[in-house]
Amino acid sequence: MRVLVLGADGYLGWPTALYLSHRGHDVGALDNFVRRQYDYELGTSSLVPIAHLQRRVKTWEEMSGLRVEPFIGDLNDAGFVYDTLREFKPDAIVHFAEQRSAPYSMIDRSHAVYTQVNNVVGNLNLLFAIAEIDPSIHLVKLGTMGEYGTPNIDIEEGFIEITHRGRTDVLPFPKQPGSYYHLSKVHDSHNIMFACRIWGLRSTDLNQGIVYGQETDETVLHPDLATRFDYDGVFGTVLNRFCVQAVAGHPLTVYGAGGQTRGMLNIRDTLACVELAVNNPAEEGEYRVFNQFTESFSIQELADKVVDAASGPVTISNLDNPRVEKEQHYYRAAHTKLLDLGLVPHLLDRSTVSSILAVAERHRDRIDVNAIAPSANWRTAGQKGRVRSEAGSSTS
Amino acid sequence: MRVLVLGADGYLGWPTALYLSHRGHDVGALDNFVRRQYDYELGTSSLVPIAHLQRRVKTWEEMSGLRVEPFIGDLNDAGFVYDTLREFKPDAIVHFAEQRSAPYSMIDRSHAVYTQVNNVVGNLNLLFAIAEIDPSIHLVKLGTMGEYGTPNIDIEEGFIEITHRGRTDVLPFPKQPGSYYHLSKVHDSHNIMFACRIWGLRSTDLNQGIVYGQETDETVLHPDLATRFDYDGVFGTVLNRFCVQAVAGHPLTVYGAGGQTRGMLNIRDTLACVELAVNNPAEEGEYRVFNQFTESFSIQELADKVVDAASGPVTISNLDNPRVEKEQHYYRAAHTKLLDLGLVPHLLDRSTVSSILAVAERHRDRIDVNAIAPSANWRTAGQKGRVRSEAGSSTS
Repeated sequence: MRVLVLGADGYLGWPTALYLSHRGHDVGALDNFVRRQYDYELGTSSLVPIAHLQRRVKTWEEMSGLRVEPFIGDLNDAGFVYDTLREFKPDAIVHFAEQRSAPYSMIDRSHAVYTQVNNVVGNLNLLFAIAEIDPSIHLVKLGTMGEYGTPNIDIEEGFIEITHRGRTDVLPFPKQPGSYYHLSKVHDSHNIMFACRIWGLRSTDLNQGIVYGQETDETVLHPDLATRFDYDGVFGTVLNRFCVQAVAGHPLTVYGAGGQTRGMLNIRDTLACVELAVNNPAEEGEYRVFNQFTESFSIQELADKVVDAASGPVTISNLDNPRVEKEQHYYRAAHTKLLDLGLVPHLLDRSTVSSILAVAERHRDRIDVNAIAPSANWRTAGQKGRVRSEAGSSTS
Repeated sequence: MRVLVLGADGYLGWPTALYLSHRGHDVGALDNFVRRQYDYELGTSSLVPIAHLQRRVKTWEEMSGLRVEPFIGDLNDAGFVYDTLREFKPDAIVHFAEQRSAPYSMIDRSHAVYTQVNNVVGNLNLLFAIAEIDPSIHLVKLGTMGEYGTPNIDIEEGFIEITHRGRTDVLPFPKQPGSYYHLSKVHDSHNIMFACRIWGLRSTDLNQGIVYGQETDETVLHPDLATRFDYDGVFGTVLNRFCVQAVAGHPLTVYGAGGQTRGMLNIRDTLACVELAVNNPAEEGEYRVFNQFTESFSIQELADKVVDAASGPVTISNLDNPRVEKEQHYYRAAHTKLLDLGLVPHLLDRSTVSSILAVAERHRDRIDVNAIAPSANWRTAGQKGRVRSEAGSSTS
């Protein structure tokens, strides 16, 4: 299949591009490098050094004999999107190319507006380009489990049968997203569902949990092929961040009581899930949702796992929660559709945590502990210009 | 109360500003006149001549002795929004200032993107300005009954109690909007609900039905105080459009089978509902939804009412439906919250239809029948530049 990966220079986009290439697909790799720009803005860096996309692609070709074709540009530039689809002629598009940090979207008004415009407009441009150029292209879109929030009922995969006053219908599962970023994904989901309905597009919305890990079978082949590893308070996801904190001798920063429970998955499972979706496309006009995670853990459980796997003593620090979220709640979410397609999960055992700790250990000289503290407070609307200084002061 | 009306130069914003002024509120009237710009773009005009806002305000002051304070600018300009809130210090903000035409949003990619960015960003700027300047300001936001679509269960007011696998929660009512415009309102609703939750803002979301009528107690006092009356295929709403068609001797253009059922209300009830919301504000942190309509009719029933009330013979033409929507469906929507606050509806009787026909009759020399035909087809993604010529050709 011809698969165009959007956001192919990012944490998951790059390993996905390599994986699909390795598995025999013809892969295009699109990016605008804005993720690297956020590093300049925030004064942060990937813990693991990452090569430029051009070099990554060249090294991959040298190692594998396989060519990944780069497309450099912005999804918000509609002309570029249309030109790329006409040139590459994808069978499927895997869309990772969105601003993906909840704290980044909560910094202030301009970051909230940027996040929603960037994500929603990029996705709209893509929907129109597909509809106008080739409606048979299968859009595999990265959503998030965070779209659902934490309702007091079981979370289903995208839709729920509701019986109300004697009548029954299957309706979109109600959404209670927890940041302007998560809201942008909910907006996308509604837009995609509509486009499938009116234009007969086919789409799979992967409501992904929190991903951990940094190494895949392809990225370990050469340092140029490594993907980024974020541990800062804005872009670092929880388990990766805990592992870096443990290695740095920094207390694990659990937000609030730590009873917040979330779906999680190994980076290797992300790649497998995306390929399962690509290889088993949605029907014409079908909008389907897969809940893409393998296990659920509370934040406290994750911290305990890191304490257990670490070689030395590690402490846990329960910070005032910068987010507005329930710290004790019911959480049970369906995730059978990808298993039905054949997913064999990599579960979170001690050796997996150890392997992430080993990545952090290998690059411990690059750790900036000032970058770890939470950087945006959900309760304060106007934090403009204070984000980096807050992060610095609160870890002193 | 000090009430800032956003979109106060528009069809409903202007009569609302007058009504609230007349009822003793201190009213600010904000607009950027983009609605008049759409007329230039589409080659259409209000059937009833409308004065400039400055003249409207001056005439109102001469007639009533009451001052409405104009604020000229764009909600997408955050600095303007913040400055206006600091200067006017509203107790409540009534937000009509969005691109409100479904067909306009369906013209092509750029109109869809414009509609969502304009509406979502304007509303986000407003939420942040309220949160940063005065979180006690009550935001009365115009949503639409079209957010719900046509589910096969009863529609409730914003939220629904769901029992699922033995557990129960009250969750946001699932949304199935039918155009990129309706989607923009769903995006807004999610953003507002979140802002109320994290910042303790107070908001009333008025999910309004289709409004008919043109005259209110205030607008009839002087020709300068008239509000606009749209009958074109892009901005004209269904009953107003039928009345103009009847007067012009044009067949009433029913889209498809005409079994589409929608909630409707008289323009006078819009004003009363807005004031009821303003006078009975939401609690701190409360996001509440009122379904703002008084009766439900199918499109065919509306056409029949116009045929019945018209002085001469009127024919009905069932066009191919340009929209993607169910033409026969279950429809039952709750609308008790505004009645509980004291709303006394003006129902749609023969004399009401006659009064709208009389408005059209009075201005029949201004009717452009070429403007009536549907101008955007839901099934075609790329109609750029063809809208006006399509409208022209299909009524020849």
